[in-house]
Parts: sequence; structure tokens; C-alpha cells
Amino acid sequence: MDREEALQIVKQRISGPRFDHTVRVLKTALDLAVQYGADEKKTEIAAIFHDYAKLQPISELKKVILEKKLDSRLLDYHSELWHGPVAASIVQEEMGVHDKDVINAIRYHTTGRAGMSLLEKIIYLADYIEPGRQFPGLDEVRALAKTDLDLALTKAIGNTMKFLIDQSAQIFPDTLEAYNDMVK
Amino acid sequence: MDREEALQIVKQRISGPRFDHTVRVLKTALDLAVQYGADEKKTEIAAIFHDYAKLQPISELKKVILEKKLDSRLLDYHSELWHGPVAASIVQEEMGVHDKDVINAIRYHTTGRAGMSLLEKIIYLADYIEPGRQFPGLDEVRALAKTDLDLALTKAIGNTMKFLIDQSAQIFPDTLEAYNDMVK
Repeated sequence: MDREEALQIVKQRISGPRFDHTVRVLKTALDLAVQYGADEKKTEIAAIFHDYAKLQPISELKKVILEKKLDSRLLDYHSELWHGPVAASIVQEEMGVHDKDVINAIRYHTTGRAGMSLLEKIIYLADYIEPGRQFPGLDEVRALAKTDLDLALTKAIGNTMKFLIDQSAQIFPDTLEAYNDMVK
Repeated sequence: MDREEALQIVKQRISGPRFDHTVRVLKTALDLAVQYGADEKKTEIAAIFHDYAKLQPISELKKVILEKKLDSRLLDYHSELWHGPVAASIVQEEMGVHDKDVINAIRYHTTGRAGMSLLEKIIYLADYIEPGRQFPGLDEVRALAKTDLDLALTKAIGNTMKFLIDQSAQIFPDTLEAYNDMVK
């Protein structure tokens, strides 16, 4: 599947601002891939499809998690986390994308996890720092991303956890495991 | 064992500032026990013994964790967490304190855990807010403790996690589970 074909498929499912976000994540992820030596083709596919399930209704996401026996712990946490694992499942089964690393980069872009691959780190971070985002602390992460991928990711995950704590929101255990793994 | 006897036992093991801290935790915990209806006798014993292993060398704490088959995950995390479970083990075996709730309040005062009992919450919080402590955000927790034990504890655990994130320090999973349980 080439880039244009993939973008056309995604555009049928997520149009408007969410598609624009996807294009910015693609650009940002490719920059990071070049800088840190990741496979550009895999980066492209993972970035284009990372939010493929983002606009599906919560009830549908839940249905896929149950039917496809995805990580059911997710159902006890914020539904904002669900679209990553669901997109990974759909992309694998319906798009014929079987590269494990690409699938995992899509799957874990909402939660992170311990032992993230280079590609997983790039997709998580590109999603966090793409130029359309704007929130406190982001400029520091953007600056770190230019020199140290791991430090930038650690800061991004740490900031996310602190944000959730300030909201009195639950934190998914995989996110803590990602953080603990990064600072170890 | 009455209060004076317990204090004398503890004073032989932890003297100076740490003993003074213990006395302040005792006073604070008893105030909370009266306010929130906890058993005062149990609160007294748990507070007096909570830091019983605080001044033991790290190598000794580690030895007890291994020999007594305490939670060995602790060894992958900061040694500051170890004295709670070790004190619980010693107090149970050497002091003949067998009340499960008292032992758990000592055991989990460093990490917290999901499903904390009233006594566990009181000891954790008293240790955090006793009048000798001073750090940013503490006054807010002290104010909350006067009206809502759970809100105060949630804030205390959240602050602790945010502090650790700012230090790029690992967070023990039980602490996240305590937090998630409190905000659920």
C-alpha cells in the first residue's frame, strides 16, 4: 500500500480536523524517523492509520474490544484510550497490515507500554508534538525531541500522567509501566 | 501493649528526629481517628510502629524482604519504600501484634494500595501531614484532611506521584493502584 492509497482509505473514515491531524502526525513522524533511523515505510503506515478508529462511537469501540478479545482492562479506563487498540485490530484484519511493529505502534499510541520499540516511540511522540497541538510544557518536549527521543518521550508520558492527576483521572497501568521503564 | 510501653520499645530503635516524627504522627493519627471514627487503640499501635524499621541499613531491609518473602517487586523500586513492609513483618513476628489491619497500616504506609482501610488511610495521611512536614501543596492536603479524608488522601498520593515524576523517579505500581482506586 503506498502513501496516497493509505491516505485515501483513512480519509474515507476520518475527515476534517482529525484527518488534518493525521497528516501532521505523518509529517512529524517521518522527520523523527529520518532523525533517529527508523524504517520510513513502516513509520508512514503506522502514522497514517494511528487514528483510524478515532471517530468510531464508544459503543462500537467497546464491541470490538470484547469481540476481538483485546485488552479488556481498557474498559475500566477512559474511552479515549480505546481507539488505539481497536485501530490496530482493524488495520491488521481489514487492511492486511501484518507487520508486528507497525501494528504495535498503532495499538500503543494511546497508552504507551514498557519496552516500546523505536517506531512505537516515534508514533507516540509525533502524536504528542505535531504542530497543531498546543498545551503547557509542549515546547520543552518539542525541543527535547530534536536531541533525545527517549528524554522527550519520558517528558511526554510524565506530563500526560501529571495532567491526569490534576484532573483526578485514572491512569492506565501500561502508561505507568511505560514511564517506569523509561526512567529506569 | 500500652502506649508508653510501645513508645519505649520504639525509642530504643529509632531515637532523635525520627522518634519525634513518630510522636507527631501518633498525635495527628489520633486526631484523625477521633474525627473519622477509627479504633483509637489500633491507630495508636500502627502510628507508633510505622517507622520502626526506618533506620535499618538498606542491606538489612533487603535481607528481611528476601528472607520473609515480602513483596520482592519492591527491590526493583526505591529503597525508601522498603521500611514499611519490613516494619510490618517485624512488628507481627517480634511484638506479637497480630491485628491484620494494624499490620497492613504499617505495611502500606510507604506505598499505599488499592482498597485501603480507614486505618491504612489515616496512617498514610498522618505520616504525610504531621506538623513537622513542610513542602509545596501540603497546606491544601492539611485543609482537606479536616473535612474529607478520601479527598485529602487522593491529593496526597497524587502529589507524591507528581513529585516522583518531576524527579524522573520510578513509581511503585501499588501507589498507582491506590491512586486509581481513590479517583474511581
